This record gives sequence, C-alpha cells and structure tokens, in this order.
Amino acid sequence: MQHTVAALVEDRPGVLNRVASLFRRRGFNIDSLAVGSTEEDGISRMTFVVEGDENIVEQVEKQLYKLIDVVKVSDLTNEDAIMRELALIKIHCRADQRREVLDLVEIFRAQAVDVTQNGLVVQLVAHPDTVDGMLENLRPYGIREMVRTGRIAIARGGRTTAE
Amino acid sequence: MQHTVAALVEDRPGVLNRVASLFRRRGFNIDSLAVGSTEEDGISRMTFVVEGDENIVEQVEKQLYKLIDVVKVSDLTNEDAIMRELALIKIHCRADQRREVLDLVEIFRAQAVDVTQNGLVVQLVAHPDTVDGMLENLRPYGIREMVRTGRIAIARGGRTTAE
Repeated sequence: MQHTVAALVEDRPGVLNRVASLFRRRGFNIDSLAVGSTEEDGISRMTFVVEGDENIVEQVEKQLYKLIDVVKVSDLTNEDAIMRELALIKIHCRADQRREVLDLVEIFRAQAVDVTQNGLVVQLVAHPDTVDGMLENLRPYGIREMVRTGRIAIARGGRTTAE
Repeated sequence: MQHTVAALVEDRPGVLNRVASLFRRRGFNIDSLAVGSTEEDGISRMTFVVEGDENIVEQVEKQLYKLIDVVKVSDLTNEDAIMRELALIKIHCRADQRREVLDLVEIFRAQAVDVTQNGLVVQLVAHPDTVDGMLENLRPYGIREMVRTGRIAIARGGRTTAE
C-alpha cells in the first residue's frame, strides 16, 4: 500500500542527505518525493510516497524524528486530505489529431501549454491516480517526455500538519 | 543565480541517497527538488533548483555523470522551457473576506479546492516567481499552511531532455 508522509524539516545544509541516508539504511522505498518551501522561513516540507504496510510507516515516522532537522512528521494517508500532483507531458500528435487529443485532455481538465507541428505539451494537476488515467489514454498517440512533481498533500478543514 | 537542472536516473534503491550525498560533499545547495516517474519504466526524473554561478552548475553536471545511476543531465536554465510549480495554500479567511480572496486568486488563475468557515485552500500552478507573487498578496490574510512541489521544467518545441 502507498503511504503519503509529510515531514517539516529545518532547511539546513545536508538535511536531504540525512533523510535519504536514513531511508536507504532502513530499506524504505520512496516512490516519489517533493521538497519545497513552506509558510515559515527556514522550514521546508518533504512529501514522501512510501510503499509498505502500517508497520513500515510507523518505523519511517519514528526514525525521522530521531533526526535533529525534523520538526514534525505526519501520515496523511488515511486523513481527509487533498492530494495532488503536477505533470507536464509532451505528446506526439499530428495536426489532424490535435482536436481529438485536446478533447481528451479537457475531460481531465488539463491544458495545452505548448504546441508544435507534430506535438503538444499538456499540463495536468490532479490526484496521482488521475494523472495515471490520463496517461493511459494518451499513450496510443506516443508520449515523448513526461515530468511529474511527485505527490503533495494538505489536510482538508482547519487542521494543519504543524499543529 | 538559480539554475534548473533535470537528471534522468535509474530507479534503483539508494539512488536518492547517492545523489544527495554528492550534493552534500560538494557543498551544492538545493533550493527545491522534485522526483517523479517518467515516460520510461525504471527511469525517474529529478528536477533540482541549485543556487550558484555557471561554474557550480557545470560541476554539478560533471559530478552527477560520475554516478552509475545517472542517465542524462540537462541544464534547462537558459533553454526555452516551460517551468512550473504546484502549490497548495491554506489561507485564513473569514466568510466576509471570501469574495475578496477569490477575486485575488482568480487573477493568478488559481482555484479554491476546499473551504471552511474561516479558511480556504487554494491550488495554484504557475512559474515559481508567480507563486511567490500570489503569496505576497495573500500574506495579509494569514497563510496557515503551504505545500509546494518544487519546480519542474520541460523544453518547448520538439526536443526532449533524453535526446
């Protein structure tokens, strides 16, 4: 099962190295990772997607707290949370296929952000499963390149991860 | 100066650890990092934003190629590339301020994706500088929580990073 874990960490040199080396030593497998700034200066937020059972995730949390840079860890998997990923996808698409591809892309509320004679770049923000769904539909045209951010998540309602 | 570097890496256990430890040893500072899957099975794409001059980035590229897992490195900074970041922002916002905040958010083509009596969650996809711009405007209302994916980038036109 996939778990979505958010960690607030102090933005110090080597913090990524310490976290990555912990995951490595413990044999935790990371499916995706996004690291960006937060509402607080000097604090970054890492969002991991890790494969494993409840036990593995408990271990991840416990081990992360042992690192001095880690301020807060939160498992958002079973929370009522908004989960999103951004993907940029370069599709092979002849001019006479364009309408067809655009119709498909609109169903997923994605947008074309670049176009050439035989291609399109599409931008999609959605739940990662929906990104996979759009990809399945685009695959027959030929996917030339794809960049995905990895999943990020935020709790619905008033609660925050830092609290 | 900020540089945007994309690295295609083989999706093997420990690859993140090897890359992070290289950055640490060399003293390269990472501003943001996004790691996600690509169009090719078994290949992940890491998008780094690193602070430094041309010289630093050349060093980053050279050192990355020394790692066995690294397939391709590409500096997209001076390329004609689409650069995007996804942000989810939880704003403090009373019901009587909601219209005002929604108007502001629409200017940046962001969307409200959750609402409570005294708050909103807003989803924005834009160039990282534009994300910063929207944040400046939202700050007076009170930003309760923010998650950002870090920047991803894809070249415009027909060229791909793997080529």
